[in-house]
Amino acid sequence: MKYAILPLFLFVVACGQGSHEQADGPTLEPEQVVADPLPSWNDGTTKEAVLEFVKRTTADGSADFIPVADRIAVFDNDGCLWSEAPMPPQLDFAMYDVKRRAEADPKLAKDPMVQAAISGDLRTLWAGEHHDGLMKILAITHSGMTVDSFNLRVREWMKQYQHPKGGAGLAGATFQPMLEVLDVLRAHGYKTFVVSGGGIDFMRVFSEELYGIPPDQVIGSSAAAEFEMKDGKPVLTKTMKDFFNDDKEGKPAGIQRHIGKRPVFCGGNSDGDQAMLEYTTIDNPLPSFGMIVHHTDSVRETAYDSKAPVSGTLITAKEAAPERGWVLVDMAKDWRVVFVE
Amino acid sequence: MKYAILPLFLFVVACGQGSHEQADGPTLEPEQVVADPLPSWNDGTTKEAVLEFVKRTTADGSADFIPVADRIAVFDNDGCLWSEAPMPPQLDFAMYDVKRRAEADPKLAKDPMVQAAISGDLRTLWAGEHHDGLMKILAITHSGMTVDSFNLRVREWMKQYQHPKGGAGLAGATFQPMLEVLDVLRAHGYKTFVVSGGGIDFMRVFSEELYGIPPDQVIGSSAAAEFEMKDGKPVLTKTMKDFFNDDKEGKPAGIQRHIGKRPVFCGGNSDGDQAMLEYTTIDNPLPSFGMIVHHTDSVRETAYDSKAPVSGTLITAKEAAPERGWVLVDMAKDWRVVFVE
Repeated sequence: MKYAILPLFLFVVACGQGSHEQADGPTLEPEQVVADPLPSWNDGTTKEAVLEFVKRTTADGSADFIPVADRIAVFDNDGCLWSEAPMPPQLDFAMYDVKRRAEADPKLAKDPMVQAAISGDLRTLWAGEHHDGLMKILAITHSGMTVDSFNLRVREWMKQYQHPKGGAGLAGATFQPMLEVLDVLRAHGYKTFVVSGGGIDFMRVFSEELYGIPPDQVIGSSAAAEFEMKDGKPVLTKTMKDFFNDDKEGKPAGIQRHIGKRPVFCGGNSDGDQAMLEYTTIDNPLPSFGMIVHHTDSVRETAYDSKAPVSGTLITAKEAAPERGWVLVDMAKDWRVVFVE
Repeated sequence: MKYAILPLFLFVVACGQGSHEQADGPTLEPEQVVADPLPSWNDGTTKEAVLEFVKRTTADGSADFIPVADRIAVFDNDGCLWSEAPMPPQLDFAMYDVKRRAEADPKLAKDPMVQAAISGDLRTLWAGEHHDGLMKILAITHSGMTVDSFNLRVREWMKQYQHPKGGAGLAGATFQPMLEVLDVLRAHGYKTFVVSGGGIDFMRVFSEELYGIPPDQVIGSSAAAEFEMKDGKPVLTKTMKDFFNDDKEGKPAGIQRHIGKRPVFCGGNSDGDQAMLEYTTIDNPLPSFGMIVHHTDSVRETAYDSKAPVSGTLITAKEAAPERGWVLVDMAKDWRVVFVE
């Protein structure tokens, strides 16, 4: 609007007969209405803590100012950005995909663990210290194919995914309040990363459209892809070699492997995120913020902490939260809305 | 300037006596003088090829338009972004650092390979199929310390580094024309990555200030960092476990591990970059560009291809270039300036 001042001024002066109506007519600098950056959060100490940290670490002249290059924010995925109850969506994908494979492969269909997956028998898959059944299903569905064909299978599954308490598709399993936290951080120069025990290639298929996080800012459990020129064309094949478990102490290791910088903002929800929360907030020369999503809402999602549905046990990290200054998000109390609508 | 049209128009009409001087006075849309985005490149087909690709993949309405999210550009480091002759700077660091360690550790000083490093006996270090001597020196200087102390040692070395034919510090070993390619790509929405056989943690210490590439966009050879809480403080220790060699077929694998997307622009200089060039340019559904820096300048840098000083052998990739359409950069002919001045 600033340019508009000049013409009116010139008009008045040049003709020596300007009317105040014209000169004062349009409001040249209307007061802006500032929208709530976290509309799905109920007002309270949790919401205030997030906004206060973002403000004091990004406001010019603030004593806690963090340079843009150091504004690294990391978030767990299952139970933090989206629901892991009744089961992590990646497990739903594995069971969906192994069923399709078994229909085309009678020999595979005879495998007891494949049968357990098809019948939804999680207890059998989860049994044993190393969850051998589950690992076998994950190996069948996450290795031995090209990266491209894996991505296509994930997209196929996405089309029909439906969270029991959310809307259609993956968005229906995604926590709207956390998307708003990602947005407010990015709007203030933070670079946002997913740091999850989930499969890196699995999450990368939808991270950009679901979270606004590009594939290169997704960190997860992974295994080696092997490159070869096949019939004159480049091919990347997924294997289970060099498996990296991006959980617990693996999370700070994964952050070092992929980011190479210490985060200043960390969101998690389980004991699997404790090491990453400690790495972010303890003895950090820069101001830091840790948050734990506490699943307290049995109506809109699922209430759990010490007894998690499949993954997401929260005991020690919750105990450490007060001393560490980690903000506990009370889903039932702090979130006006739970899922993306 | 568009706003300015209105006032003059109003002025003329309202007063019914506008003068042509005033009406036509200021040029409302002055022609912009466009600066050369690659000033250190001599005019010619190579420079034109780079600018033409950037233009046709980013201009609105272009048939070869690439969405911003898919504008992934990858560059080798040694011999592509900076000089690897007479030796890769990381090797210079290893020899500098092992000497300092030996001074403080007489037992270490007695090691024959350490003595070879101190005396600059590259032949001994390089001997054997697996370069055991070199690997030993790299292990001594790149593992067994915290990430923070490693970064400090690299910074110490940086202060005194001097390329024999370049200016002071790491910038003196850096190719100014390649920095301009990085800049022009980023100015057009490309996300730039380093994909090098060099150590990922080593390059991350200076990638941001030297190349404008943040640590999370640096891909290199790496090994596991181990996390622990020590005396109540988080500690990441560098190890040699899970060593990943980001060279040859390892480069597309490293791109998948860290980026998860296929590049459309690839710069390299040796046969170690051939797999990455193939992955970028062969059978890519998007337009793609491959460039090979050919070290032809024995005066300003070092002339080599089939007989590389230490690393950087270029034989098969150069042979494949014409068929693959990879642009060969003739350093002597195409670069007006070689090093950052």
